[in-house]
Amino acid sequence: MTSTPVTVLGLGRMGAAIAALLLRTGHPVTVWNRTPGRGADLTGATVATELADAVAASPLIVSVSASTTTAAETLLPLGPALRGRTVLNVATGRPDQARDLAAALEPHGARFLDGAMLAVPQTLGTPESVLLHSGSESARAEYADVLAAWGTARYLGTDPGAAALRDMAVLGGMYGLFAGFFQATAMVGGSARPFTDDLLLPWLRSVLDLLPMLADEIDSGEYPVSFSDLAVNRSGLADIQATATGAGVRTGLLDPLLRIFEEQEAAGHGTASFSRAVAALHPAAVD
Amino acid sequence: MTSTPVTVLGLGRMGAAIAALLLRTGHPVTVWNRTPGRGADLTGATVATELADAVAASPLIVSVSASTTTAAETLLPLGPALRGRTVLNVATGRPDQARDLAAALEPHGARFLDGAMLAVPQTLGTPESVLLHSGSESARAEYADVLAAWGTARYLGTDPGAAALRDMAVLGGMYGLFAGFFQATAMVGGSARPFTDDLLLPWLRSVLDLLPMLADEIDSGEYPVSFSDLAVNRSGLADIQATATGAGVRTGLLDPLLRIFEEQEAAGHGTASFSRAVAALHPAAVD
Repeated sequence: MTSTPVTVLGLGRMGAAIAALLLRTGHPVTVWNRTPGRGADLTGATVATELADAVAASPLIVSVSASTTTAAETLLPLGPALRGRTVLNVATGRPDQARDLAAALEPHGARFLDGAMLAVPQTLGTPESVLLHSGSESARAEYADVLAAWGTARYLGTDPGAAALRDMAVLGGMYGLFAGFFQATAMVGGSARPFTDDLLLPWLRSVLDLLPMLADEIDSGEYPVSFSDLAVNRSGLADIQATATGAGVRTGLLDPLLRIFEEQEAAGHGTASFSRAVAALHPAAVD
Repeated sequence: MTSTPVTVLGLGRMGAAIAALLLRTGHPVTVWNRTPGRGADLTGATVATELADAVAASPLIVSVSASTTTAAETLLPLGPALRGRTVLNVATGRPDQARDLAAALEPHGARFLDGAMLAVPQTLGTPESVLLHSGSESARAEYADVLAAWGTARYLGTDPGAAALRDMAVLGGMYGLFAGFFQATAMVGGSARPFTDDLLLPWLRSVLDLLPMLADEIDSGEYPVSFSDLAVNRSGLADIQATATGAGVRTGLLDPLLRIFEEQEAAGHGTASFSRAVAALHPAAVD
């Protein structure tokens, strides 16, 4: 187990949790926060007041900010001071932003890894905390010990945008779940909490168990029915939308899915699985 | 524990499971299926070949069909033969269809309960199998023992449409989850199964735990931020949509939610919780 000096930039809730994790796993940690006064509670950490000092203190810089754009705005003005550093960007951002930051760091002689954390501060360091990362292969190899501290570190290759793409996809899945939740609670009206606890949550938990099966349908490229067909789901979703309208609730959130089901059924795919909706999301797809 | 003769109409996968459950819990069961030849494996059940005989055999008729429309088409032609019967309609359908069926049965002297099962055949009879039901209060009281066999029987009042409304709302929530899943797998491209198993599912499972908190925000009517604010989510979802477009994937499924976030932020609600999206689904809501 090597011990690598690490600098953590940004001491929000997640940045502070990362710094504490790295201290626990035996790495010398320097911390810096744009607004001074943070980090005093991180026993063992060196608190830098100047960003340049923080970056000079360690070969590995973990930037924990709200966005990749913020990370770029913070780091790039340092210019030559970045030489020989490796930046691990832990922020929610788009793949193109990660690629741009990687490209902007390169002339300064800095390596780049983009990280996407599928974790909350509470689970950080446990196996269920996943750090997706992509970018510099040599940096990834050199700092494997540090990356492993996150829990499960998963390297996705040299494209700096690979981690962010998966992160965005997972979060897209999450927003679908939220959209369904909003639609459901609006339809029921009255008190959302008992409906959520007693009816919606248990049902959604059991529906999650179906996703691997649907993923297999999608991967086969044939969309065989292992659960229910597209026509049945078109009819069911149309009933849901009519019910929402009848209850005085706007149906907009689920309209696009119904439209896709209708288009696919009209194109003769009513007996395929409803997972065939995925095919409609690729513009290249025929019908 | 009383023993009530029950007739089950419809012996698809769910109808057969219900008949088996009622036999197990000690009720004399008569079964009928539109297409003859089913029910021979239900040891102890009386198989009726004629619908009229099946309906004459028991005071309680459990109709298990694909839709409330099909149930109405099957039952209503029986006319006077329905006198004194109670119909429990276990089908996916809209609240207005349940109310229509209740109203059409009344002149024949039949009572009506609409049932919505949040269960799969495998969990039927366990506490996690929920039978929402609404309609005739007297029928509900008379057949409480039979209804309890489902697992958790939850009576929602005399409006025959009350059970179907909650059923439709729960299923609406499910379609949101599916929409997110389709969007996510399309964005990632490549193989959907490992992405689903390793990244998406664990994340969605942890997100489900947030829903009770969001329900509390909604119930307060003030949408206080317990997790993250609307502006942050607008920005995040915009990044997701831009990432999808960059990956050549249509963004339609999540466009309406982004539009709601944008409208709400423009109306000055950026610092409220993103659960404020629910307010936009009620046309009566001011901004």
